[in-house]
Amino acid sequence: MVRKEIMKRLVHKYGGTSLASIARIKKVADRVAKWRDSVPEVVVVVSAMAGETNRLIDLGESLSENPNRRAMDQVVASGEQVSAGLLTIALMDLGYDAISYCGWQVKMITDGNHGKARILKIENNRLEEDLGKGRIVVVTGFQGVTEKSEAISTLGRGGSDTSAVALAASLNADECLIYTDVDGVYTTDPRIEPEARRLNEITFEEMLEMSSLGSKVLQIRSVEFGGKYKVRTRVLSSLKDPKLSIKDELSCSTLIIQEEDRNMEEALISGIACNRDEAKITIPGVPDTPGIAHKILGPIAEANIDVDMIIQNAGIDGLTDFSFTVPRIDLTRATERLEKKVIDEIGAKTLHTDKNICKVSIIGIGMRSSVGVASKMFEVLSKEGINIKMISTSEIKISVVLEDKYMELAVRTLHAAFGLREA
Amino acid sequence: MVRKEIMKRLVHKYGGTSLASIARIKKVADRVAKWRDSVPEVVVVVSAMAGETNRLIDLGESLSENPNRRAMDQVVASGEQVSAGLLTIALMDLGYDAISYCGWQVKMITDGNHGKARILKIENNRLEEDLGKGRIVVVTGFQGVTEKSEAISTLGRGGSDTSAVALAASLNADECLIYTDVDGVYTTDPRIEPEARRLNEITFEEMLEMSSLGSKVLQIRSVEFGGKYKVRTRVLSSLKDPKLSIKDELSCSTLIIQEEDRNMEEALISGIACNRDEAKITIPGVPDTPGIAHKILGPIAEANIDVDMIIQNAGIDGLTDFSFTVPRIDLTRATERLEKKVIDEIGAKTLHTDKNICKVSIIGIGMRSSVGVASKMFEVLSKEGINIKMISTSEIKISVVLEDKYMELAVRTLHAAFGLREA
Repeated sequence: MVRKEIMKRLVHKYGGTSLASIARIKKVADRVAKWRDSVPEVVVVVSAMAGETNRLIDLGESLSENPNRRAMDQVVASGEQVSAGLLTIALMDLGYDAISYCGWQVKMITDGNHGKARILKIENNRLEEDLGKGRIVVVTGFQGVTEKSEAISTLGRGGSDTSAVALAASLNADECLIYTDVDGVYTTDPRIEPEARRLNEITFEEMLEMSSLGSKVLQIRSVEFGGKYKVRTRVLSSLKDPKLSIKDELSCSTLIIQEEDRNMEEALISGIACNRDEAKITIPGVPDTPGIAHKILGPIAEANIDVDMIIQNAGIDGLTDFSFTVPRIDLTRATERLEKKVIDEIGAKTLHTDKNICKVSIIGIGMRSSVGVASKMFEVLSKEGINIKMISTSEIKISVVLEDKYMELAVRTLHAAFGLREA
Repeated sequence: MVRKEIMKRLVHKYGGTSLASIARIKKVADRVAKWRDSVPEVVVVVSAMAGETNRLIDLGESLSENPNRRAMDQVVASGEQVSAGLLTIALMDLGYDAISYCGWQVKMITDGNHGKARILKIENNRLEEDLGKGRIVVVTGFQGVTEKSEAISTLGRGGSDTSAVALAASLNADECLIYTDVDGVYTTDPRIEPEARRLNEITFEEMLEMSSLGSKVLQIRSVEFGGKYKVRTRVLSSLKDPKLSIKDELSCSTLIIQEEDRNMEEALISGIACNRDEAKITIPGVPDTPGIAHKILGPIAEANIDVDMIIQNAGIDGLTDFSFTVPRIDLTRATERLEKKVIDEIGAKTLHTDKNICKVSIIGIGMRSSVGVASKMFEVLSKEGINIKMISTSEIKISVVLEDKYMELAVRTLHAAFGLREA
């Protein structure tokens, strides 16, 4: 698992939990220092101290129901500015040469979509110069600056992961190490299945599905970025003893790799994701005519509500039941939109909503070359008396919508049935 | 007092107490909005919310006994970044067009003396453009950026006053309004003399003496700046009702003016300053030879300790008692330095220290053209049985060092004797 070549340039990323207190910041400094003793060039990307971003957002929101987004970004971005400075102070106190930069100093250029900006390019001359001098470079995650240094912009929740991976790509780092409060990516949520097993490797494609289906380990955009720019990305725990040897650290982590670099046992599936974040809307008796899906979903899209699963099943009477899922927090907004105009317009009589659902998904590149994975999944669930409400598939995942109360049972049963327990 | 010409461009400055909570930030927004309704161009300079700068310094100092100053500046500067963003959110929520900038965006260029940087120049093209569009511009006080945007720099305690006055100078503002928790400059500290009276006007020179002698109303550097660049600077209270008319606000403030604009009754003295910040060191039996002052004070200066008053009185026996005052917090360091080498070297036997002293000063441009001010001061103190330990004078002030316990009595007696009570 551990790469044989010597690593010369690394990017580390530490999340808010890892930086939540003075004691933890010191622990991060110890860990970075240990790495720097073996690796000549180390860049560290930091999030805000845990709780800080929420505190700042609360301040802004208590001044306005709809706070100006440019100004809000300026407020919120201060969180990483503080933690970057503090980590630098701690590193220098240990006798290491270190320097901290905000996104605007690097510069990490983004578009002007405040609150969910995208990184456009990274100018890293300054960082290259510092790395050349042997300095540890500490950079604020989560933020950049619009062209011409007009305004500070933030990347949205979890954006520091993306900052780190983007920096690793731009600096041609050998690896991007994402330190978090878990020691890797698990076959499923260990709070649901105590026998969940850490994966030594996972492909970007699988990780992308895991992230979009409910695994909170990495921000989805960072996974896209890493896959696109082929950044070796590793998830590790920042809670372990910082004096642990580098070899021991690496042996207890998950490496996210390109499919072609895949080295693992040919498991049928790699992981199981689940969530209770969605709700189902069904409109019965919809005329089965062209364009009906657009008529129903258009107004939902306009309201910026994500639609996940969609089922339209043509009946023999020219009528169909049209079902789809939306984020549970958007259910009220979605039904209001539909009731206001869509229901009448399409000649339907009513709509049903169902909040008591969950989604369970199995994910694995192995599916591509195997038949029967789906039928095995359905069989396992059926044996437990679990009724499937909706199904959606992609090349490497199968998701089912179930009654809410079956989520834990379904995850545990599938976890055992697909042999994920064994090491 | 109120200027007759119409004001077109103003700089406001609000301190940390004025921005200490969401409620107070809203109050500041109301006040700025009221001004903007009458004045087309308004720039607002803000400090960090009260307590925030100390919190950030504590974080840095808990990571290192001697925190790296560049990194510390990055940490500390976040305080104003937050309050500038928040005030902008509040102003926009009131329906005003506003935009916030950090020092590095303006840009406020400073030298690289982190923690006590000096402003070198201000590039205000961006602000001019925004003001031209009718926007209220909110700028972080206390901070700037070194040339080439290398690093955030802070100006030191109270630096936001200097930021505001420097911006007002650079933008050719009609006036710089410093909002604080008092409604102006008083003849003396009202906590000591309840009959202290707010001055409608004071000259920069007098204000400079007041600031250096213990009045905490304005940072001394901002007064120097205002005097040098002839910025009409006004001190007002941010605690009054923000709906108060502009006329009423101005009529309850202190305007700091150039001497040539002076318009006031020819008072002999304008104010009385006092403090208990100093301690006295006396070295008895020093040979009265050339260079002795340098031999004693050189090592003190090298230790970066400010020496204030100095008395060297030649005796007839070729020996003299050499006395001077240093900040009370530096007394131990100063005596250690002297005992280590100076005492032996100059052939003295010992040194005495006295912490139980205070300094009381009377200040007034009127002194220049009047004789007898000093003798009146000494007479008044003598009548109360107060012994004077040291005296120092300048063209517009007389300072005396007294026994600590007499400070309040001396201030009140002098306040009455020089007729400062009457309006």
